[in-house]
Amino acid sequence: MDRKIPIGILGATGVVGQRFIQMLEHHPWFEVAWLAASDRSEGKPYAEAVRWRLKTAIPARLAAMQVSPATPDGAPKIIFAALDASIAAELEPRFADGGCAVVSNSSALRMQPDVPLLIPEVNAGHIHLIDRQSWRKKSGGYVVTNPNCSAIGLVLALAPLYQRFGLETVMAVTMQAVSGAGYPGVASLDILGNVIPFIRNEEEKMEEETRKLLGQLNGSKVIPAAFAMSAQCNRVAVEDGHTESVSIRLKTKAKPEEMIAAWNSYRAEPQELRLPSAPKQPILYVEANDRPQPRFDVDTGSGMTAVVGRLRPCGVLDWKFTVLSYNTIRGAAGAAVLNAELLKAKGYLE
Amino acid sequence: MDRKIPIGILGATGVVGQRFIQMLEHHPWFEVAWLAASDRSEGKPYAEAVRWRLKTAIPARLAAMQVSPATPDGAPKIIFAALDASIAAELEPRFADGGCAVVSNSSALRMQPDVPLLIPEVNAGHIHLIDRQSWRKKSGGYVVTNPNCSAIGLVLALAPLYQRFGLETVMAVTMQAVSGAGYPGVASLDILGNVIPFIRNEEEKMEEETRKLLGQLNGSKVIPAAFAMSAQCNRVAVEDGHTESVSIRLKTKAKPEEMIAAWNSYRAEPQELRLPSAPKQPILYVEANDRPQPRFDVDTGSGMTAVVGRLRPCGVLDWKFTVLSYNTIRGAAGAAVLNAELLKAKGYLE
Amino acid sequence: MDRKIPIGILGATGVVGQRFIQMLEHHPWFEVAWLAASDRSEGKPYAEAVRWRLKTAIPARLAAMQVSPATPDGAPKIIFAALDASIAAELEPRFADGGCAVVSNSSALRMQPDVPLLIPEVNAGHIHLIDRQSWRKKSGGYVVTNPNCSAIGLVLALAPLYQRFGLETVMAVTMQAVSGAGYPGVASLDILGNVIPFIRNEEEKMEEETRKLLGQLNGSKVIPAAFAMSAQCNRVAVEDGHTESVSIRLKTKAKPEEMIAAWNSYRAEPQELRLPSAPKQPILYVEANDRPQPRFDVDTGSGMTAVVGRLRPCGVLDWKFTVLSYNTIRGAAGAAVLNAELLKAKGYLE
Amino acid sequence: MDRKIPIGILGATGVVGQRFIQMLEHHPWFEVAWLAASDRSEGKPYAEAVRWRLKTAIPARLAAMQVSPATPDGAPKIIFAALDASIAAELEPRFADGGCAVVSNSSALRMQPDVPLLIPEVNAGHIHLIDRQSWRKKSGGYVVTNPNCSAIGLVLALAPLYQRFGLETVMAVTMQAVSGAGYPGVASLDILGNVIPFIRNEEEKMEEETRKLLGQLNGSKVIPAAFAMSAQCNRVAVEDGHTESVSIRLKTKAKPEEMIAAWNSYRAEPQELRLPSAPKQPILYVEANDRPQPRFDVDTGSGMTAVVGRLRPCGVLDWKFTVLSYNTIRGAAGAAVLNAELLKAKGYLE
Repeated sequence: MDRKIPIGILGATGVVGQRFIQMLEHHPWFEVAWLAASDRSEGKPYAEAVRWRLKTAIPARLAAMQVSPATPDGAPKIIFAALDASIAAELEPRFADGGCAVVSNSSALRMQPDVPLLIPEVNAGHIHLIDRQSWRKKSGGYVVTNPNCSAIGLVLALAPLYQRFGLETVMAVTMQAVSGAGYPGVASLDILGNVIPFIRNEEEKMEEETRKLLGQLNGSKVIPAAFAMSAQCNRVAVEDGHTESVSIRLKTKAKPEEMIAAWNSYRAEPQELRLPSAPKQPILYVEANDRPQPRFDVDTGSGMTAVVGRLRPCGVLDWKFTVLSYNTIRGAAGAAVLNAELLKAKGYLE
Repeated sequence: MDRKIPIGILGATGVVGQRFIQMLEHHPWFEVAWLAASDRSEGKPYAEAVRWRLKTAIPARLAAMQVSPATPDGAPKIIFAALDASIAAELEPRFADGGCAVVSNSSALRMQPDVPLLIPEVNAGHIHLIDRQSWRKKSGGYVVTNPNCSAIGLVLALAPLYQRFGLETVMAVTMQAVSGAGYPGVASLDILGNVIPFIRNEEEKMEEETRKLLGQLNGSKVIPAAFAMSAQCNRVAVEDGHTESVSIRLKTKAKPEEMIAAWNSYRAEPQELRLPSAPKQPILYVEANDRPQPRFDVDTGSGMTAVVGRLRPCGVLDWKFTVLSYNTIRGAAGAAVLNAELLKAKGYLE
Repeated sequence: MDRKIPIGILGATGVVGQRFIQMLEHHPWFEVAWLAASDRSEGKPYAEAVRWRLKTAIPARLAAMQVSPATPDGAPKIIFAALDASIAAELEPRFADGGCAVVSNSSALRMQPDVPLLIPEVNAGHIHLIDRQSWRKKSGGYVVTNPNCSAIGLVLALAPLYQRFGLETVMAVTMQAVSGAGYPGVASLDILGNVIPFIRNEEEKMEEETRKLLGQLNGSKVIPAAFAMSAQCNRVAVEDGHTESVSIRLKTKAKPEEMIAAWNSYRAEPQELRLPSAPKQPILYVEANDRPQPRFDVDTGSGMTAVVGRLRPCGVLDWKFTVLSYNTIRGAAGAAVLNAELLKAKGYLE
Repeated sequence: MDRKIPIGILGATGVVGQRFIQMLEHHPWFEVAWLAASDRSEGKPYAEAVRWRLKTAIPARLAAMQVSPATPDGAPKIIFAALDASIAAELEPRFADGGCAVVSNSSALRMQPDVPLLIPEVNAGHIHLIDRQSWRKKSGGYVVTNPNCSAIGLVLALAPLYQRFGLETVMAVTMQAVSGAGYPGVASLDILGNVIPFIRNEEEKMEEETRKLLGQLNGSKVIPAAFAMSAQCNRVAVEDGHTESVSIRLKTKAKPEEMIAAWNSYRAEPQELRLPSAPKQPILYVEANDRPQPRFDVDTGSGMTAVVGRLRPCGVLDWKFTVLSYNTIRGAAGAAVLNAELLKAKGYLE
């Protein structure tokens, strides 16, 4: 590839928008060429419009880039979108209609039948739903989405088991980091020394997205996976990394060593295609009896590996384990970047 | 009552020992007359032996009290014990053998068939196991225990449902406060911005104690309740208050308003007997969709009320809810004090 | 007193407004009769307008009270004001002009020459500035203010030393709690595991308010105290309680025991007049070498006592010490309530 | 250099010992060849002896390395020592006596007249004190030390000012991270939501070490710098990074832009010699008005750069500013590694 592909970022000033910029700074294929945010930011240099919340500095080229209006005119043909759901519901179709490939992190269109909800290691084949989208037919534009930040870690842990042993039941209780709520997001007075046992719409998203992700593409739609599923979501005083206590019942009996082997050996298209953001190992099982922990494990695989531990028998279902994933990387910006890499590898960015 | 009953505290310098002292400072029936701790503390004034970790000051009378050796000679006949399990396994039988009523917070003897594991609002009748203890027959001494700090909140929430609707299945995931690990306990480097998905032996204790607590006394032993049970335990950066995400299946169908009524109207012997430490309402259901939270709800009923919230249908079992209880009060010192009050009311302290 | 005096609260939905309601719930003299907040809240029942952030419940009577428009018409004659400075600058004069006694926690008018900036234990005499206010002459209304939350703790610690030994130099570095920034205030992503070495305008306020508070009333104005003063302000991950590391140079030599005696024995008009919110001891010196600490000491004197510790020689000035005070109580709502009590005792509420 | 120089680590299992291992994993000159810790660890594989607290994994080669007894027999000739002061006082002389170059992070010998207390960017010339040590004469062994973790950040910020403008007075108030206390170190119950205004001996160390570091080598001893100095030390709920609020008086007047230039342009021997662990820029001034902050700035220069900000006039002395440095890297392990690199470059490791 001689020249990098120009991409745009919708919602560039938010926490996920910032992660897009950080992750794309040295990307071998893509190059940020356009930034858009709310009206308030329009026309300002990015460095002035953003309240930058990452440890690495704003890339100098982007610091000076003027924030564009959030309309498809003049936007690149590939758009990473990190918008609030209500805004995404309005803007994402408009960009798809304008001929853009919209790679979205928002929940707005995830459950729409003709919109792929993708984890490239899990259901890359669902990408073909794109061809069913009316935008695609009309303007060439389309929308693909990645799941909710809590669903991604869970589904990565479930996929190898689902494929090898089948799943009957899944119960997950999350302990989610504050960065998942954006910025300013959770007030310090709400979370210091506290647990908040509620995140709006999160349990519903986890339950329905998990089944769509592990579902079967059947022509124009995805038939959701058939297992029973229940999620409870909590917010804790952690900066980055969602931890989940999971219990499952399998269809076929499995020994723990088989399950661990299923996790550790799991490889899929992103690994075979050597997509730039694909971790070598999408799932890592750690043996220590008190891991995974956000403090120590969240950066595994540059934040793209789901870390699983504590596999043990469950007194109600079959097995219990803990899974951790980096919510703003594997669970948001990194998920979308990997989706875009898959689109490129599959010829959808031409 | 003319004179208060003298009591002793074994393990008086630990976090739970300190809570005993705090809770008994103005107790209408009991008066601390004896303090014992490890050899290191023996002979020192209590204020010098202890690293006091509570917000209220050490009562002046006790600050000056000399720490006694941890032997039954010279100890009062009623002993509150807050010892590590390994030490408790050795010392508690020795005190019972020496004729003491040992009211223990330790796990050492909880599952022994002839030792009552008590929550006075739940299974006051199990107290009669005392009469089966060989110590009782020999010296008059005996041991009663209260459950693990995570089991208490759960069982308080389950008891009204169990009694009214029956239970088939219980799954609980805890988010436990650091005070549950004693002092110094959890290192700050381990928990700041972190979740630790492991607490040694905690899941096992929750699973077996819950069934003993809700079990049926049958002559000389308790037949454990028959439901399936699974617990997952996590440590979070909260000072006080264990939060639990619970899912249950009932034997009989119940409407949410019936379950809420069962919780809010629940009263038992401690309330009828007006035991001094019994909360007016052992369980409180809060309507706000983001409660209970440690920060706001842990002190409910002076820390003796379990606070339940977020009742909603479960996609796997029947119902999900959150329960919070104050781990060092209702889950430890307050539990033992209430046990002692029940013993007194039932004539076991004469 | 037969009937309680009706008072109103401007800015009733904020963190300090909530504290007013909490502190006045059982007040022997005052009774909340009117609540006002921003336009958004107007007309709603208070419980619906407020995002209540305190551990105690909203008093039932006030939960149902309708939020009034923020205008003097129909407002009681005594108004507690907890407004942002920019809004206070506009509204407080309007209420004073309308004949109200405005007891303000805002910084807007604190440094205005004819507005008393009061700590009743320190400069009760400054109250007579009221008589110089044009509002007072015209409508009977007036404004009194309490200092910034960081200045109050500092000045309480300085006052006994200033009065007995004189002060030449004061340097203070603060570590301030997040509740000082209101709600939602500091984002959790900004403060978890962090220190923010900047609070807008805070250093300036501390420096000028401290000198006005310890200044001399001279007819129509206060001549600021003449010592040199420097403040540095930091935000830390503490819920409640501002801690300050202070160094001072005295005019007259003092022994540490004399300074400690000056603190512990300090009493002033609020104590002599037995004002309901006055702590018995406005300043408490603690001997332990690692105190005061927010976790253990913030509630001293129901949050109205400044706690001092760690007095030791300074290698540059004369002495170093640490002072802690409860920022939303002694440093805000409690300060204003005590001001109002002083006004009442001095006949300014008739 | 064909072969790497074998080095040993005394106190290899502690938090600083772990940092040594992490920082030396890919070091171009040095190679860990020997690990020693307390008796309890002796003979065990390192991975079993240590409670590893860093995010990166234990290097595989060292995980399997057997922990040696803490005696000079069989130890390499270069020893990094990360011992508690009381143990260091005994062991460090023993290793120097045995012919080892002891590069120590402990406070035990720092203030001994013939022991260099070094920050290579500040006082590299003090290294020649080595030649005065009796160990050196006898066995070739010697001891060099790096300062206390709080002194290093401060002195890096002061050195350019001291050299260019002279210093009359320094006042510093620290807000120190919990990792500075080792592991388990600060109990979570002590620091969650809290500030502890006391760290044993820390203020004394900062005051005397700062003056020795900026002192003048005069034959066999260092004449301490003559400015007045006062430090106050606090512990806060931060994992890594000590923040300090500093006030200074200069000998010569300086404009802020001159001071900022002095900081940003500061280079010294480690930069000229291109020592492997030397940051390109030892001090970085950040312009944002709310920086430096541990969360965002601690990793600057791989944790080896002191970050300064908020320069503004002081109402008592001349100037105020904030400095941040990474306590376990620049303030401990990195400091010692840089010292060893300086020793190598100066021919002291031959």
